[in-house]
Amino acid sequence: VILVVCLNPALDITHNVEQADWAGVNRPHRVHVRAGGKGVNVARTLRALGAEVRLAGLAGGGTGAELAQRLNGSGITLTLTPISGETRRTFTVVDESRGQTALFNEPGPAVSPGEYAGFLVSYQKAVAEAAVVVLSGSLPGLSADSYAELISLANSAGVPAILDTSGAALRLGAAAGPAMIKPNLAELSEATGRSLDPMAIDQVAVAARELGETVVVSLGPAGLLAVTPDRSWLARPGEVVRGNATGAGDAAVAGLAAGLVNGLDWPARLRQAVALGAAAAAAPAAGEFSPLDYQVHLTRVAVEDLGGSAPDVAELPRSSGSL
Amino acid sequence: VILVVCLNPALDITHNVEQADWAGVNRPHRVHVRAGGKGVNVARTLRALGAEVRLAGLAGGGTGAELAQRLNGSGITLTLTPISGETRRTFTVVDESRGQTALFNEPGPAVSPGEYAGFLVSYQKAVAEAAVVVLSGSLPGLSADSYAELISLANSAGVPAILDTSGAALRLGAAAGPAMIKPNLAELSEATGRSLDPMAIDQVAVAARELGETVVVSLGPAGLLAVTPDRSWLARPGEVVRGNATGAGDAAVAGLAAGLVNGLDWPARLRQAVALGAAAAAAPAAGEFSPLDYQVHLTRVAVEDLGGSAPDVAELPRSSGSL
Repeated sequence: VILVVCLNPALDITHNVEQADWAGVNRPHRVHVRAGGKGVNVARTLRALGAEVRLAGLAGGGTGAELAQRLNGSGITLTLTPISGETRRTFTVVDESRGQTALFNEPGPAVSPGEYAGFLVSYQKAVAEAAVVVLSGSLPGLSADSYAELISLANSAGVPAILDTSGAALRLGAAAGPAMIKPNLAELSEATGRSLDPMAIDQVAVAARELGETVVVSLGPAGLLAVTPDRSWLARPGEVVRGNATGAGDAAVAGLAAGLVNGLDWPARLRQAVALGAAAAAAPAAGEFSPLDYQVHLTRVAVEDLGGSAPDVAELPRSSGSL
Repeated sequence: VILVVCLNPALDITHNVEQADWAGVNRPHRVHVRAGGKGVNVARTLRALGAEVRLAGLAGGGTGAELAQRLNGSGITLTLTPISGETRRTFTVVDESRGQTALFNEPGPAVSPGEYAGFLVSYQKAVAEAAVVVLSGSLPGLSADSYAELISLANSAGVPAILDTSGAALRLGAAAGPAMIKPNLAELSEATGRSLDPMAIDQVAVAARELGETVVVSLGPAGLLAVTPDRSWLARPGEVVRGNATGAGDAAVAGLAAGLVNGLDWPARLRQAVALGAAAAAAPAAGEFSPLDYQVHLTRVAVEDLGGSAPDVAELPRSSGSL
């Protein structure tokens, strides 16, 4: 079982309107509601790949109930710890004639120490049965070292943990020694205080090495850079796919987790992750992808071996902009 | 008990943002969620006046469950018939720096004949115990003559019905002979095919007489015009209050219903309805008002007796614009 932790899931509501009146009354011609949040997207993609998935998280209020209900029948096993706060919503307004999308993200709920303690009990039970743990997304009203704690518990149980978050949660979580960290370029830049140019792969590799032992950096449409203790690889999609960046990152994490569980070597693992990311970027909603797209992308990913190890941190100066 | 029918309630979600980015990501600094829909507002106002209120309607899905939960503890007795469709949401974005409000109204749910039949059973039981029935708001996926049917059933039970709706539901409902009809000027104009000038009270009275026997027309900040078989009255607030027009209309309906149940004469009934409307217009959310505001407005309403009866329909020509 792959355990995916989603502490701050969301109910994603999308309204499509012909042309929005931002000072008047609109009647959306399409309303779409789904369970969302990065961990939910990762779990969905893993399930579509045929993996056994357990989603562990916090859910509360009417939105929490609706979230759980909308994941019923998805094939994902749910272990949601109830909280008295209300699971957040995201509201997306798609203005079709202007080709604009506005997103309104509600803040996450408060979580009491008792509720978090309840989650920890479920988590430890779930970790004991897991082949890998994926920790995805932001923390709601929780201490920034929560992921660090979850990673330490996974390490103690001998279960590899994959971390995909940002800010202080990323910095503190990385220090706890997860098996893999998956920042994007902006998150890596913020966590290391280095301004990074996606074209300067050496610089990016240095920053990755600084963040942790095994780091896979998503470079957006340019693919993935994997820096491991032994070797580094750059995996590029056959064609540049633009689209849903959040969905692409979450799909890549799913590919990396599935590859790890299935014992794929790094080139095969990266190939799978890049192809999933490219297929997900083209899909209308995060957590979805066309299997045919995926197969096509899989044959086209180019994986380049960058050699024995990344350059040493000392070799490159920090950018002046971030010092 | 006052029975309020709300066939198309809504979960009202409001996001306040500093300055909206309609092509980007926004983080609302205030999120407010409440049960809404015209009938819910009327029921809330009646409850605040101390009346015993039963709210009968349709509710389904996660939003329906949340709606019911948010009315728990309101003191309103709920008789919600479950439907398989999902209760609609309204989404309001308040752009504080621009002083603009955008409203996104989801369409109402589909209602099956079996579900409506289930509602009718509850309705007939509730009517038997009611002193008055208020029928408020739009019909979701239901036949436009549904209010006409509900009015006929109330008439058969000897319970007066007050109708507040628009379009075909108003025209067909008016023909079924409710005890009172409460259109606003636009609804009256649409239902009678007459273009109406709020300053030309005689014209408005003619149209009202055409719509039904006892009609109270809300003139917005100008107050209420009541046309009854015996006499007509014009009730004006002491000062012009602008603000929440929907809330004001719903509060006026509550005042009319409470006045009818309490046996107030027409001038007292109108005084109460106008004062409630003025107090509600100034309140931040529909269905709310400050009791102090209400008391102040109550002393200031001016009720003018317009005489024995409204002018005959034949006396005034139809406007050329609507022929």
